Amino acid sequence: MARPAKEKIARLLGDVAEQAKGLSRPERREFLRQGLAFAGTAAIGSAALVRDAAAAGENLPPNVPPWTRSVGPGVVTNPYGMPAGFEDHVVRRTVPWLTASSISSISFTPLQDLQGIITPSGLVFERYHGGVPAVNPDEHRLMIHGLVSRPLLLTMEDLMRFPSVSLIRFIECPANGGMEWRGAQMEALQFTHGMLSCCEWTGVPLSLVLEEAGIRPEGKWILAEGADGSAMTRSIPVEKALDDSLLVYAQNGEMLRPEQGYPLRLLNPGWEGNTSVKWLRRLEVGDQPWHQREETSKYTDLMPDGRARQFTFVQETNSVITFPCPEKPLRDRGRYELEGLAWSGRGRIKRVDVSLDGGINWRAARLKGLILPKALTRFSLDFDWNGGPALLQSRAVDETGYVQPTLSQLREARGTESIYHKNAIHTWRLAQSGEVTNVQIE
Amino acid sequence: MARPAKEKIARLLGDVAEQAKGLSRPERREFLRQGLAFAGTAAIGSAALVRDAAAAGENLPPNVPPWTRSVGPGVVTNPYGMPAGFEDHVVRRTVPWLTASSISSISFTPLQDLQGIITPSGLVFERYHGGVPAVNPDEHRLMIHGLVSRPLLLTMEDLMRFPSVSLIRFIECPANGGMEWRGAQMEALQFTHGMLSCCEWTGVPLSLVLEEAGIRPEGKWILAEGADGSAMTRSIPVEKALDDSLLVYAQNGEMLRPEQGYPLRLLNPGWEGNTSVKWLRRLEVGDQPWHQREETSKYTDLMPDGRARQFTFVQETNSVITFPCPEKPLRDRGRYELEGLAWSGRGRIKRVDVSLDGGINWRAARLKGLILPKALTRFSLDFDWNGGPALLQSRAVDETGYVQPTLSQLREARGTESIYHKNAIHTWRLAQSGEVTNVQIE
Repeated sequence: MARPAKEKIARLLGDVAEQAKGLSRPERREFLRQGLAFAGTAAIGSAALVRDAAAAGENLPPNVPPWTRSVGPGVVTNPYGMPAGFEDHVVRRTVPWLTASSISSISFTPLQDLQGIITPSGLVFERYHGGVPAVNPDEHRLMIHGLVSRPLLLTMEDLMRFPSVSLIRFIECPANGGMEWRGAQMEALQFTHGMLSCCEWTGVPLSLVLEEAGIRPEGKWILAEGADGSAMTRSIPVEKALDDSLLVYAQNGEMLRPEQGYPLRLLNPGWEGNTSVKWLRRLEVGDQPWHQREETSKYTDLMPDGRARQFTFVQETNSVITFPCPEKPLRDRGRYELEGLAWSGRGRIKRVDVSLDGGINWRAARLKGLILPKALTRFSLDFDWNGGPALLQSRAVDETGYVQPTLSQLREARGTESIYHKNAIHTWRLAQSGEVTNVQIE
Repeated sequence: MARPAKEKIARLLGDVAEQAKGLSRPERREFLRQGLAFAGTAAIGSAALVRDAAAAGENLPPNVPPWTRSVGPGVVTNPYGMPAGFEDHVVRRTVPWLTASSISSISFTPLQDLQGIITPSGLVFERYHGGVPAVNPDEHRLMIHGLVSRPLLLTMEDLMRFPSVSLIRFIECPANGGMEWRGAQMEALQFTHGMLSCCEWTGVPLSLVLEEAGIRPEGKWILAEGADGSAMTRSIPVEKALDDSLLVYAQNGEMLRPEQGYPLRLLNPGWEGNTSVKWLRRLEVGDQPWHQREETSKYTDLMPDGRARQFTFVQETNSVITFPCPEKPLRDRGRYELEGLAWSGRGRIKRVDVSLDGGINWRAARLKGLILPKALTRFSLDFDWNGGPALLQSRAVDETGYVQPTLSQLREARGTESIYHKNAIHTWRLAQSGEVTNVQIE
């Protein structure tokens, strides 16, 4: 493996030796600021809440907040609930210069504000090729035809009678990080990695429906077509369709959101999000791929020799540190839980290492919570920040043994003119101010 | 175990022998209605979708739906997305006569419309004792005092610096099903079992914060107080607090919803939902319980001898069939996937049995997807409906070996005057019309 460029690291980092102290394990107490505990409880009424007396250096009188001195709205004021107004900055965002129009564009999930592995449906990233169609589920049909012995035309009710499965799986646009091939551009986690979400999806195994249609032995590829204004189409190898592809109608417990393909989408777990065709209306079985627009002029990888590589379906192992990040700087020295997300289109995450010094020293992170195949996996590391600069990196390994590459390794294979499938180790620079910026280390 | 009342079953069921045929395993093809496939593909354009030609018995011309002939809205039209308008019937609902006012009342999760095990945050059931307070997270404080060596006053920022965990756990009001003690009353799954939801919760183990505060050996109980207008309070044994209680700030990936305690709630996994105090502002460590209103006049179990039993914290093993149900009748004969949910406050679900004949014959259901401790677990059974009446029941067993009781077993122990902790086997009657009603079998 190529070593990171030492001079650049030294410049970005300042004093590596100083930062290495951050690897020790101090007392848990350091999670709290100095003087956070207050001196005694004598002045505190049993039902009273004192404003931050210790931080102010004085004992303020007991203070019952205004919301305890009144009653709020009752049940089903909001029969379908929404986030608190104080959280209205936690939204999907877009980069206006990225595409010519909003109907064929992308929005990004605010990973910097999320916890756990479930992305709430309202914050799942968007990607359209012709806007969001308003499909009436009672009129929607899925047609299955081509190399099948029994063509089918299914209503949603028909589909929902098949046995279903529910799986937590990530979905990622293969262009995630694509703006970073030549150099760091985006000063926000939301824009460097936010074409990424993870939900519990419910649907029918595509294999069951193909079996019902009587797929013929000469059927090798399946064309999936959307009911949107772009009639988005992709060719899917039959091996995937018979493996773990799903005809999905629900997401995080409820019916799919319009932006996610309501009432029906394909889901190809671990593959380019683009192949998981939304508003799915047609599956045609054929003996070869169709070479549609989204698999020729787009969603191909421009290689260093000038040729375009087609059908690189799998989203390879990737990871990113989500705290700290540009949107979430550090405010004080002391103990923090550094956090991040890792994922692999080939299966489970086996291990994540974290470096605080731009790839010179690595330490194994903790994998937190559920470790599911083709799902976001959260990792963390106790991190004692002494106020020095740091270069924060994460490197994921999946159960196949695939190791997330460095940027120079990826560029060696793929050049710098590509758009898709950038899964290189990502670097955040933590400055003495606590601010975090996006930098690139070869 | 007491046998179900045979005469009542016979009356409700009609012909048991006829229904037993439903236990056989037919071809998968029966999931689809007769004649669903259409005769040939000759008349179908490659990008066209035919209206239900087979059902209509004729070949209609190719038809491209209106939403494919136009473009819809683009990205971030809705920076925080919402369900499709066609799904606006999927909401929390309440029973107006249940309580005197809506600020101290409950709403129910539409379990009949949900898939998988995650309840979307907007549909998590509500229970308030003084409405929903509009807590400002920047001003919110958590005080930890009493029998501790170092009282703490924590901001949300302080709390979020502690190491966090993310867990999928159910939450259930102990009054769930409480209207059914004497007899079947509610003709809807939403009202018989909808005080039940399951989310991915993220927060700090309470044990870590108590350790930070230096809990004293004589500390045996913890009073948890909410910042709502009712200052809701419950006494929690320290063993639970040091076991798996969490100080929760996030739910399904994002910050808690206002209705769920924004910005901070206690979560006691597997215990009465009421103990998971919302809008948490104070934890006081003491040497005995406080006997507050919500653990004396309410949330106690009135026993047959007229005494009230206190502190029955655990939500025992329970289950219910979610499809078919009163809101989701059957429309045709043939193959269906009968579905349901099971849960236990003591750990994982080990097994669920399903009866189609009111408890005479039982068959093991399939446990679907993730089987997590103290979480909803989905089960299903292939069910071939021949058009006869059926009495549908499910019976869950958890990993401790606890078997969900029959109604007569539960009444024998608890009488009929209770409100809380009704976890008896539930019965749906499927009529020849396909309609489903709520009936009770002893």
